[in-house]
Amino acid sequence: MSTVTIDRRVFLCGPVAGALVTARAWAQTAPVSAGPADPKLIEDLVAANRVLADQGVVDGYGHVSVRHPADPQRYLMARSIAPEMVTAGDVMEYDLDSNPVDPRGRASYLERFIHGEIYRARPDVTAVVHNHSPSVIPFGVSTAPLRPLYHMSAFLGGGVPVFDIKIAAGQATDMLVRTPALGRALAQTLGPRPVALMRGHGAVVVADSLPRAVFRSVYTEMNARLQAQAMALGGPVTYLDDEEARRAEASVAGTISRPWELWKKKALAR
Amino acid sequence: MSTVTIDRRVFLCGPVAGALVTARAWAQTAPVSAGPADPKLIEDLVAANRVLADQGVVDGYGHVSVRHPADPQRYLMARSIAPEMVTAGDVMEYDLDSNPVDPRGRASYLERFIHGEIYRARPDVTAVVHNHSPSVIPFGVSTAPLRPLYHMSAFLGGGVPVFDIKIAAGQATDMLVRTPALGRALAQTLGPRPVALMRGHGAVVVADSLPRAVFRSVYTEMNARLQAQAMALGGPVTYLDDEEARRAEASVAGTISRPWELWKKKALAR
Amino acid sequence: MSTVTIDRRVFLCGPVAGALVTARAWAQTAPVSAGPADPKLIEDLVAANRVLADQGVVDGYGHVSVRHPADPQRYLMARSIAPEMVTAGDVMEYDLDSNPVDPRGRASYLERFIHGEIYRARPDVTAVVHNHSPSVIPFGVSTAPLRPLYHMSAFLGGGVPVFDIKIAAGQATDMLVRTPALGRALAQTLGPRPVALMRGHGAVVVADSLPRAVFRSVYTEMNARLQAQAMALGGPVTYLDDEEARRAEASVAGTISRPWELWKKKALAR
Amino acid sequence: MSTVTIDRRVFLCGPVAGALVTARAWAQTAPVSAGPADPKLIEDLVAANRVLADQGVVDGYGHVSVRHPADPQRYLMARSIAPEMVTAGDVMEYDLDSNPVDPRGRASYLERFIHGEIYRARPDVTAVVHNHSPSVIPFGVSTAPLRPLYHMSAFLGGGVPVFDIKIAAGQATDMLVRTPALGRALAQTLGPRPVALMRGHGAVVVADSLPRAVFRSVYTEMNARLQAQAMALGGPVTYLDDEEARRAEASVAGTISRPWELWKKKALAR
Repeated sequence: MSTVTIDRRVFLCGPVAGALVTARAWAQTAPVSAGPADPKLIEDLVAANRVLADQGVVDGYGHVSVRHPADPQRYLMARSIAPEMVTAGDVMEYDLDSNPVDPRGRASYLERFIHGEIYRARPDVTAVVHNHSPSVIPFGVSTAPLRPLYHMSAFLGGGVPVFDIKIAAGQATDMLVRTPALGRALAQTLGPRPVALMRGHGAVVVADSLPRAVFRSVYTEMNARLQAQAMALGGPVTYLDDEEARRAEASVAGTISRPWELWKKKALAR
Repeated sequence: MSTVTIDRRVFLCGPVAGALVTARAWAQTAPVSAGPADPKLIEDLVAANRVLADQGVVDGYGHVSVRHPADPQRYLMARSIAPEMVTAGDVMEYDLDSNPVDPRGRASYLERFIHGEIYRARPDVTAVVHNHSPSVIPFGVSTAPLRPLYHMSAFLGGGVPVFDIKIAAGQATDMLVRTPALGRALAQTLGPRPVALMRGHGAVVVADSLPRAVFRSVYTEMNARLQAQAMALGGPVTYLDDEEARRAEASVAGTISRPWELWKKKALAR
Repeated sequence: MSTVTIDRRVFLCGPVAGALVTARAWAQTAPVSAGPADPKLIEDLVAANRVLADQGVVDGYGHVSVRHPADPQRYLMARSIAPEMVTAGDVMEYDLDSNPVDPRGRASYLERFIHGEIYRARPDVTAVVHNHSPSVIPFGVSTAPLRPLYHMSAFLGGGVPVFDIKIAAGQATDMLVRTPALGRALAQTLGPRPVALMRGHGAVVVADSLPRAVFRSVYTEMNARLQAQAMALGGPVTYLDDEEARRAEASVAGTISRPWELWKKKALAR
Repeated sequence: MSTVTIDRRVFLCGPVAGALVTARAWAQTAPVSAGPADPKLIEDLVAANRVLADQGVVDGYGHVSVRHPADPQRYLMARSIAPEMVTAGDVMEYDLDSNPVDPRGRASYLERFIHGEIYRARPDVTAVVHNHSPSVIPFGVSTAPLRPLYHMSAFLGGGVPVFDIKIAAGQATDMLVRTPALGRALAQTLGPRPVALMRGHGAVVVADSLPRAVFRSVYTEMNARLQAQAMALGGPVTYLDDEEARRAEASVAGTISRPWELWKKKALAR
């Protein structure tokens, strides 16, 4: 794993040199499976995909993953397919280098490195969402920071960094997080927070469970919409202060099953 | 009930002292039921929950209650569940301290004190809605007052106060109206009016009937949306004057069964 | 009919004197029917109601009428009911004083005088829509005039007046066009145009056929939305010039069956 | 046909080179068919119509065509009908003069010349969409240029010209591209790009395949919406730079089947 260490040092200094990326261990021997996951977790992963579509957080693009309960070095995510169409049979297993365990010809999302590298950098994270959440995108290309003004979005209280892939790559890119190095750079921008915006692209949202990652995705989108509206009213906007945000997040966390049960029921009924 | 009197005096002076809250009578003996309510009223309460969801006034959160027709010291509200999923079997009875009559293990909304304390303070109120109505939230964090510009929203003519829970509590809170004292503070901000905004949170809407509370919720949301758009057009905005608002509200009140029948029919058809 | 003449003169000078309104002939003998209307026209009227709801031009309120083909002194409109719920059995016949021919206990819209008085003032008009079209309301309370920037909305080219009921009534009102006198004042503001806004209330839209009145309602709403967006972009907005508007309206008029067939098919399929 | 010549001379004073127009063969004998098209292509064309409606890019108006695979001088497009209602039986064949091969009484879109003239001017183009995409229209009447701020819309990187039909025609028109000459003028404004706005009207979008033309229509609409929101936040907006746009477009092009399969499945399921 020393190459990973080197990569990280490079990130700390600035852009990733492509050479280091190639130097990285790209073992093409398929990783070993952590074994079958609980069907209830798979059902939640399928539901998460569809809920994100139902709630307008993802369209034909975007993906959501969950760490494998049996092995923190593995995660589960659908093959390359629109989230709304995901079924249990589409779920694949990956190692943290984002190599599929058993591809059987199924294509993987180009940007799966977002997931693998965040799971590597954040042992506390159990679920990752990458989306093109529409109301969030304007904040990723603006100088106006996204800030919580609504108790349901209190998790944004620690600030929402913007990942600029051009700075991370040290050059113009195709905007896609298509390498482990870029995934690590994004994870570094995210730091210990739940949400990072991606300039000209979308956002990444993480949590300690699938329902909470979905919840945070929905209420990041909502906060962005409400904040734009509040700013348009013309006067100063009162955001949650740090302590309000901290306390509200803790309280709201205990209520997430309420919308989750609603969303899941509707998503799986179709 | 002298502690209530004391609490109220304290509110008049400023923040709630936690000690007083503890001093309050928290009799944990279950209150006595006022008896079964008319099934038609229960049906209206179920419909109200679903209509509020259909109309975009509530999402997975929010709640609506109705005062018990047989006893003004009791009210009816669903257990802690998303409004869209409420059925008759979810309806519970509460006293005005917001203690459930017969919980049978069913969880209660954390913020039920909004309802109990408003029923206590406002004998004229028969129905209470608490929501996170999206277009309303920006007005709760802005210096721009919500004002009626549309005859359907004439009930806003007496002004729309903003409840800032931090001022009420005298300190940072988790933003939730989770105690009788905070419920009373909100009721005090509401005063004799039909609507109060809650900073960083949502709104509370009251009326003398369930259909009217739903109607007011829908048209508060609509007025907020239209007012933001009117303000964005750049010139001065002509709001309803006081007499127009008073007269329009009286006239519109007689027509509410028209949308209510439509909304209820659609809500119960699913 | 001399009182009508007098009323009109009064309108020209300013507010309506209530006394004149009372002086008006309120014959309560039911008017004679012009006979049954073509079921296809009734079907179109039912479809028009539902299409307006589908297109977001009306909600639980609003109404649409059509002049009786057999007698220009009669018009057809639903009883007081939400547009989306209208069926053929709800259609009633009115004379131009807006007296129902055969009410059989069915309630009439309070504001039916909008229809009767416009049919009286405008022999060229065959269909009238009154709505609370949401994007239009901000323009009715703003100093920004609604102007066509889109060829589908070219019919707005002659200008869109705003009816202020307070000026018409000479005093604060309940905002409702609840008398023949107020209906006439609105008809006078409308003049020869297809659309007038009603301050703090909505709009009235007329045409020489039901499909065209519906079409104009839909594209007045759309133009208002697009105009607000174009104004928000910050620069000058290029509106259709007078000749473009005149020519575009004439050409587009020949294409209205295309959306109408789509809308009607969907509206009646439910 | 001398009046056509005169029209052309007028066009010569503006952007369109008209001499060529006069010289063109206006044979009114029906063109010869290139033979039946692959039913799978027809299915895609039907799907494209419905997807554009589902995605809010077209309403009752707008059209999409595909070049005939057997003959680049022919294209396929529905008869004059709302896109959402198109079925395989509605598809007609046209030559590049936009004469129908076998009309059998079916009406053609007035503006079919948009398609014929773009296919003539752009051998690289296989599919053409003309729409009244709502968020795009404000940019067509504003001085604010539409620019890509989102990697999915990177295809806008080469700039988005605005076609002003009044300048093209040298005089006020009915805003419709109702002649070959106007179609050629539009094709000239489009140049080598994928998208041109049409002032006061809508847009034209082209690509080398039907799915890609639909994709570009959807994400032109999305970019316009997001750009308006980003501009409203008040600060400078960071757009994709030229190289980012070029690279992102190339990469995203490889992923279009993902949303297309989703959209098509839903469109054909109804």
